[in-house]
Amino acid sequence: MIFPESDAIINAATRIAPFIHRTPVLTSESINEILESRLVFKCENFQKVGAFKYRGATNAVQQLSHAQLQYGVATHSSGNHAQALALAAKIKNVPAYIVMPSNAPKSKKDAVIGYGANIIECDPTLEARETTLNKVIKEKKAYFIHPYNDYKIIEGQATAAKELIEDTPVLDYIITPVGGGGLLSGSALSVKYFSPGTKIIGAEPTGADDAYRSFIAGKIIPSINPDTIADGLLTSLGSKTFPIIKKYVAQIFTVEDSLIIEAMKLIWQRMKIIVEPSAAVPLAVVMKNNHIFKGKNVGLIVSGGNMDFNSLPF
Amino acid sequence: MIFPESDAIINAATRIAPFIHRTPVLTSESINEILESRLVFKCENFQKVGAFKYRGATNAVQQLSHAQLQYGVATHSSGNHAQALALAAKIKNVPAYIVMPSNAPKSKKDAVIGYGANIIECDPTLEARETTLNKVIKEKKAYFIHPYNDYKIIEGQATAAKELIEDTPVLDYIITPVGGGGLLSGSALSVKYFSPGTKIIGAEPTGADDAYRSFIAGKIIPSINPDTIADGLLTSLGSKTFPIIKKYVAQIFTVEDSLIIEAMKLIWQRMKIIVEPSAAVPLAVVMKNNHIFKGKNVGLIVSGGNMDFNSLPF
Repeated sequence: MIFPESDAIINAATRIAPFIHRTPVLTSESINEILESRLVFKCENFQKVGAFKYRGATNAVQQLSHAQLQYGVATHSSGNHAQALALAAKIKNVPAYIVMPSNAPKSKKDAVIGYGANIIECDPTLEARETTLNKVIKEKKAYFIHPYNDYKIIEGQATAAKELIEDTPVLDYIITPVGGGGLLSGSALSVKYFSPGTKIIGAEPTGADDAYRSFIAGKIIPSINPDTIADGLLTSLGSKTFPIIKKYVAQIFTVEDSLIIEAMKLIWQRMKIIVEPSAAVPLAVVMKNNHIFKGKNVGLIVSGGNMDFNSLPF
Repeated sequence: MIFPESDAIINAATRIAPFIHRTPVLTSESINEILESRLVFKCENFQKVGAFKYRGATNAVQQLSHAQLQYGVATHSSGNHAQALALAAKIKNVPAYIVMPSNAPKSKKDAVIGYGANIIECDPTLEARETTLNKVIKEKKAYFIHPYNDYKIIEGQATAAKELIEDTPVLDYIITPVGGGGLLSGSALSVKYFSPGTKIIGAEPTGADDAYRSFIAGKIIPSINPDTIADGLLTSLGSKTFPIIKKYVAQIFTVEDSLIIEAMKLIWQRMKIIVEPSAAVPLAVVMKNNHIFKGKNVGLIVSGGNMDFNSLPF
C-alpha cells in the first residue's frame, strides 16, 4: 500500500494555509505540576468551525475541479465533519448536502445550517445514513467527501501535527484521539516525516475501543454499539486509516469516560479553554499512564471545542 | 487630588513583567458578524490565577520593603484578589492571611489554600470582615493590601489596558467591568496617557449599579444588598477609584443578568474560552447598546475566568 508522501502533507499545508487558523500551542504550569510532565496542547478547538476537521475538508474541497464541484458536495455526519464540509463548500460557493440522523441534537443541526448547508434527515441507523447519502449523491450529483477514509482528508488532518512539531521541536510523544482514524493516521505520517524520534500514540475511550482492538488483532474490528461521552470518537477505523496506524503508531491506550470527564474539567479549570470530551481523551491517557509520561515532553492534539452546554457532565 | 502619573503605570508594567503573563488579544469573526462591530478581547482569563487581579497584587507586593513584608500580607476577599495576593506573597516567600466569609464556596477556599495562603473565616457580613481583618493585622503584624482602593493596585490593573492599546493601536472604545473600580480607574488612566482618542466605558450589572449611580450623582453611593450573577462586581467604588472614574470615564452602562449570561454563553460557544460572568459584562453592554458600537473598534477587557462549573447559569 502506498501511503501519502511527505510532499503531499507539505502541499496540503500550503494549500489550506489561506483558509485555516494556525492554532496556538498552549501550556499549563499547573497541569504540568500535577502530572510532573511537560505537556503542550495544540489547540484545534480554536480552529475554524471549532475542530481540526476543517483542515481535511478544506484540503479535499480545494482540490476538486470545477466539474467535480459544480453540483456541490455531500457527506453523512452528525459531528464536526458536517460543519467543516459546510464551511469548506461555502468558501467555494457551492452547495453542501449533509445527511444527519433525525435524532441529532438541534445545536449541531443549527450549526450546519448556520454555515449555509442543506440537511437531509434520515433514520438513526448506519444503513439509513448510507442509503440516504447514496440517494442524495445520485439525485443532486453532489461529490461525496468521506469524513476520514480519504487520503486528501488524512493529508489535511496531518497538518495539525506538522505545525505542532514546527512549534515544539523536542517531543517525546504526540497523542491524538482516535475515532475513524483520520487525525491519528495523518499525525502518524507527520511524525514519521517531520519528527521521526517522536512516538505517536492513539487515545481512545474504553466504550468505543475498536482502534485498540484492531491494533492488537492486526485487522479492522469495527465497533458494535459504541458508547462513550466522547461523541466524536464513535466511528470505526477505515481501510485507508488503519494500515497507516498499524504501521506507524507506537501504541493505543484506552481510558474510561469518568477519567475523560476529569481530564476535560481539568483543562476547563486550569487552562480556561473549552474543549469537547473527545479532545480531552489524550490528557486522560497521560493521567492514567503517568509512569510512562512523567518527565517527558508530550504534545496533545486538542481536537475540538464544540459542546452542548445544556448537557454538561459535571 | 493627584492621580498616578503615566510614569507610575510604565514603571508598574516593567516591575510586574517578569511575574505576569502578557495575555493574548483575541478576536471572533462570528461575534463581529453578529454585532457588526470590530471587537478585540484582552484575555485576562489567561492571566496567572485566572484574573487581572494578579497584576495589581504583584505591583503592590513587589514594592513592599523587607520590613513591611517580614510578617506577610493580609486582605479580605472571597474572590480573585484573594488568590492573586496569595500567589504574589508565595513568590516573595512570605505568608498571606486571607479573611473569607464562612459561606464562601469551597472551590474558592481550595484555590486560595492551593496557593499556600492561610484562610481566616468570619461571619458573612462586611462588619465581621473588617473586624476580623483588623484582628489579623494586629495579631500577625501582616501588611494590608486593599483589593482596589490603593494606587499601587490601580497602577497594576492599568497595565492590562496599556498592553491592549499597544497591541491594538486604533480603538474607538475600551470597555471594562466595574466593581470596586480598580480595573476601570486604572484603564481610564492608561487611556488618558497612552490613547487619549479612545473613550473609556464602565460596564456594570443592573443588580450592583453603585458605580452607575455614583457617576450620575457625582458622589459615591455605595451598593446596598447588591445581587448579580457577576460575583466579582459586588463591591462599591472607593475613595481612590471614584475620583479617577468621575474625571476620565466617558460613560457607565448597566446590563441585566439575563444579558450577561447570554454574552457569557456567546463567548464560550464562539471563542471556546472560559470567562466568568463578570468578564462578560462588557460584551453584554455592546449587545445592549449596539447602535453605539456598530462599526466601531472596541476593546473589551475580559477580566477573569474563574468559575464554579457545578453551578452554571445555562
